[in-house]
Amino acid sequence: MHIKYDPVRLLLVFDLLATSVFALEGALAAVQGRLDLLGLMVLAFATALGGGILRDLLIGAIPPNSIRDWRYAATALTAAVIVFLAYTHLSRVPSILILTLDAAGLSLFAVAGAAKALQYGIHPLLAVLMGGITGVGGGTIRDVLLARVPTVLRSDVYATAALLGAAVVVAGWKLNVRPVWAMSLGGVACFALRMAAVWRHWNLPTVVGR
Amino acid sequence: MHIKYDPVRLLLVFDLLATSVFALEGALAAVQGRLDLLGLMVLAFATALGGGILRDLLIGAIPPNSIRDWRYAATALTAAVIVFLAYTHLSRVPSILILTLDAAGLSLFAVAGAAKALQYGIHPLLAVLMGGITGVGGGTIRDVLLARVPTVLRSDVYATAALLGAAVVVAGWKLNVRPVWAMSLGGVACFALRMAAVWRHWNLPTVVGR
Amino acid sequence: MHIKYDPVRLLLVFDLLATSVFALEGALAAVQGRLDLLGLMVLAFATALGGGILRDLLIGAIPPNSIRDWRYAATALTAAVIVFLAYTHLSRVPSILILTLDAAGLSLFAVAGAAKALQYGIHPLLAVLMGGITGVGGGTIRDVLLARVPTVLRSDVYATAALLGAAVVVAGWKLNVRPVWAMSLGGVACFALRMAAVWRHWNLPTVVGR
Repeated sequence: MHIKYDPVRLLLVFDLLATSVFALEGALAAVQGRLDLLGLMVLAFATALGGGILRDLLIGAIPPNSIRDWRYAATALTAAVIVFLAYTHLSRVPSILILTLDAAGLSLFAVAGAAKALQYGIHPLLAVLMGGITGVGGGTIRDVLLARVPTVLRSDVYATAALLGAAVVVAGWKLNVRPVWAMSLGGVACFALRMAAVWRHWNLPTVVGR
Repeated sequence: MHIKYDPVRLLLVFDLLATSVFALEGALAAVQGRLDLLGLMVLAFATALGGGILRDLLIGAIPPNSIRDWRYAATALTAAVIVFLAYTHLSRVPSILILTLDAAGLSLFAVAGAAKALQYGIHPLLAVLMGGITGVGGGTIRDVLLARVPTVLRSDVYATAALLGAAVVVAGWKLNVRPVWAMSLGGVACFALRMAAVWRHWNLPTVVGR
Repeated sequence: MHIKYDPVRLLLVFDLLATSVFALEGALAAVQGRLDLLGLMVLAFATALGGGILRDLLIGAIPPNSIRDWRYAATALTAAVIVFLAYTHLSRVPSILILTLDAAGLSLFAVAGAAKALQYGIHPLLAVLMGGITGVGGGTIRDVLLARVPTVLRSDVYATAALLGAAVVVAGWKLNVRPVWAMSLGGVACFALRMAAVWRHWNLPTVVGR
């Protein structure tokens, strides 16, 4: 099993792609919060790497991957500089494109996070939660730093989609499906649920709404 | 000493009881913050397990106990679902009952947290602080996620009671009292101080008030 | 190299001095936030030790230094009690003195943080970031606990100065400069940049300002 679940190179590519998307979003949020260049870098770093760092601290992968490997920090900081230099162009990007890229990044993080937790011998229930934390942890830290209630706690089947993707990976591992299939299927499930929720304005029920 | 201070089973029962009380409170706070079902789960998890996770990261017990043992997460998530399904009934529970259960949970967490820090060879002064962090860390994370100043920083001899309970445990350990006695006495001290503060509206002095 | 970079005693003196300055500032912020004595202690502890604890968790120095060595906590808590007892006097201290002491503390933390990260084999790029986190992490946690956007994200070449000091240490290590020189030079660079920024009201560019 360990050999089957050692998709280090796959995780690296997944992680760097998702890192750049999340870093762009963090830097854009920093611009809207009227922060300076350094604020953009901090929020890009925290949004992109916060979820994975939190997961790694919790599963005992210390130092966290993105502290061990300089490419993550370099990717996040580069994204912040790009936003700083090209904000006028980036702010014209249609929001549906950003939502789509974000859903893709969320899927990649959730799936990779659950797989890594399984590799570290974490119980399946917790591995699902670790996938969710990898997906939404960075955005949560970003919102805490901007002193607002994290959007993931409020809206639109966002964390739920991450948990679904992670659950598919864990289920596949339980059923001895090949990791690459389980991870692909989990990513598609997360992406599809998130996009459907955006499109149809789905929300989870609240106590008041019941 | 190590054998005497290995109350693993006792800690487990203590921890799961306190976990369910704190998780209920976290989920109730989430309902008041108009969060959805997932928000209830996140706040239940963070409130119930945040303090212990923080303590475990700080004393080097990694992965933290509540990531290693699925029963903690299951307890917290179950409490969130119960609040979601039975909020109308739960909101009619008299507040004195909630305050009492919370004081009991606080006592259990503070005492167990100090004992665990001692087990890990942490200096007595820091072991007292670790007991305090175990007791109030979860509520602090809950309030940070709700973007408000943590209530433990403001009011009513709450963290102070946790520190008292932890200090009794540490003093008992210094004096070679049997752990079960030191922990029981610490729990009673924390509980009594907290309930007295609620009843008499005791507060710590502030600079302005002096 | 390891022998050259084992300035344990130097780090201890550096750290305790900076700890007391940052703890004083944390406690003063707590008074302004109308917190009680315990709130002062929590904010003194978090402001003074939060950055170093975060760095240690990230580089894998667990338990963090300030949990392992009781003198850090004792220093922070003593500072809180001093602020509580002597607030009237301390509030008359001219703000330029506080800014100067703070710049000195920032320099010490940034330089020591980068050196420690290098000791733990962290990549130079990340070692610079770890120096920055050591310098501004505590203030960030303080502001999060006070439910406001961290000032380091908004203003006055503060984190930038910490990063400069850390970068000088890392560059000196790359160039085989003796650690004591690299650290001294880094500290002076950080201090000078920060004081110049305070004096000339320098700020980093923002997207709107470009």
